[in-house]
Amino acid sequence: MRYGVIGTGAIGGYYGAKLARSGQEVHFLFHSDYEHVRQHGLQVRSYLGDFHLANPHVYKDTRAMPPCDVVLVGLKTNNNALLRDLLPPLLKPSTLVVLIQNGIGVEADVQRMFPGIALAAGLAFICSSKSEPGVVNHQFYGSINIGNYSCPDPSVVERLLAELHAADIEANLVDYETARWRKAVWNMPFNGMTVALRCQTKDLMTQPDARRLIYEQMMEVCRTAQALGVEGVDEPFAQKMMQMTDDMVPYSPSMRLDWDYHRPMEIEYLYTRPLEIARQAGSPMPRLEMLEAELRFMEGERNEE
Amino acid sequence: MRYGVIGTGAIGGYYGAKLARSGQEVHFLFHSDYEHVRQHGLQVRSYLGDFHLANPHVYKDTRAMPPCDVVLVGLKTNNNALLRDLLPPLLKPSTLVVLIQNGIGVEADVQRMFPGIALAAGLAFICSSKSEPGVVNHQFYGSINIGNYSCPDPSVVERLLAELHAADIEANLVDYETARWRKAVWNMPFNGMTVALRCQTKDLMTQPDARRLIYEQMMEVCRTAQALGVEGVDEPFAQKMMQMTDDMVPYSPSMRLDWDYHRPMEIEYLYTRPLEIARQAGSPMPRLEMLEAELRFMEGERNEE
Repeated sequence: MRYGVIGTGAIGGYYGAKLARSGQEVHFLFHSDYEHVRQHGLQVRSYLGDFHLANPHVYKDTRAMPPCDVVLVGLKTNNNALLRDLLPPLLKPSTLVVLIQNGIGVEADVQRMFPGIALAAGLAFICSSKSEPGVVNHQFYGSINIGNYSCPDPSVVERLLAELHAADIEANLVDYETARWRKAVWNMPFNGMTVALRCQTKDLMTQPDARRLIYEQMMEVCRTAQALGVEGVDEPFAQKMMQMTDDMVPYSPSMRLDWDYHRPMEIEYLYTRPLEIARQAGSPMPRLEMLEAELRFMEGERNEE
Repeated sequence: MRYGVIGTGAIGGYYGAKLARSGQEVHFLFHSDYEHVRQHGLQVRSYLGDFHLANPHVYKDTRAMPPCDVVLVGLKTNNNALLRDLLPPLLKPSTLVVLIQNGIGVEADVQRMFPGIALAAGLAFICSSKSEPGVVNHQFYGSINIGNYSCPDPSVVERLLAELHAADIEANLVDYETARWRKAVWNMPFNGMTVALRCQTKDLMTQPDARRLIYEQMMEVCRTAQALGVEGVDEPFAQKMMQMTDDMVPYSPSMRLDWDYHRPMEIEYLYTRPLEIARQAGSPMPRLEMLEAELRFMEGERNEE
């Protein structure tokens, strides 16, 4: 299939580059890195082995890009309004758009923007970063779960999975709702708390009051998922997430990195939208509402600086 | 009546000095300021007019102090264990001990330490500080509400009120439970939130998400007070506290000052004890529980530095 990558950062860049290396035709949209990658190619430094794409298809404007079978969207959700202009040139009637993004509600909003398109969620379990132009640093993990949101033809999703596997990417088909809410069980506590308390995951796991709070926040998400009838988002899963985080190296989630690098935080889709959904479902999440308010306050104070 | 002041800081020092100036016999316990006050007296700089006590009765050990009719305790609650040794020399059978302290549960704990004594709560509405040895800076307000906790003879409390009035101090007799929980309506949100978000009261009142959160935290306290059958701690009172804080100058509550000056915070009586009481009453306060966890985490991280 022909692939497009919009938002070629640490995540979209990694998956796109792996697909290109495996022989797929991949078209990358770049912003600030465009000139660098056009001249020097795209470098992936990975714990699984480094590689370099000497002449990738690179663009600085989607209007120059061809229609694609699959579009991987790696934008920060705060920039999703840009999709209104960026996406149309890449679309043909059957295009599958995969949102490799954080949070809850992104597919619903993009679907509202483009009612007819086929959407899937891409849930990346990966630690990678972009430290310099044209270089993706892939530190560990690397799998991606695909949840079908509105693709009427399951064979397209199956083919995507097969081509991801052929590109040496661990990829699984998952239930969309379960996957998004499961990810929220980890994302909602850790992204915000590491910012609010300027710490890493490990610090929260080892201080008893913070650890209890993290678990209570996980259970708020589980109760909401249960109120929504989403399966597999329950106390055993929360316990598994605690265990997994205990086993992880001290880690700074993406929101903590955004805060550290003075980038806007993804408060809207990581907090505001799921909190709205929770209230509508009659299952409010008071601790996570408080966390959202703290993050909004911190961002407001910083913007006044 | 003969007065003793234990913990002669910005608050106990102010009320004790006003009583002494009005002609009452007041005995002051000092710690680090003892030598300075013995030599230079006690200076009060007040927006209501400065004054100086040239030769106050000062002590560095309560064993040298005489039994008193009223003991004003101005210690930080974290030091209340010291009362076990400090208090006995000042006690006679009828002594009234007034705890001019923050939080919920202090009287119950001191009563457990001294089952027979007469206790009252002193709720100070005052802004004062101690910037240098032997000097109390009184910036504004200055009233004190007295709630009878376990004094069997109401005439002692009435006499205290009369003598406070004679010392030009605004003082009122209030219902003990109502007064302590009313104060918690303001104290619990603002003390912790100004630390968690490193800000002042005004910042929280002007940022919409923080303002909503503060009000929700106030309502958590109101619901607990109602579950306990305490009267007058309700939505109209919370709205009045919001209005009062809107009308205040930007203010750093005592916990914020403790944090700024690297002193231990009064987490136990401002949070842990009322949160326990709330859970026992079947009215948990999730946002304030989260705030307690954040404060404990912050204090833990600092202590590791």
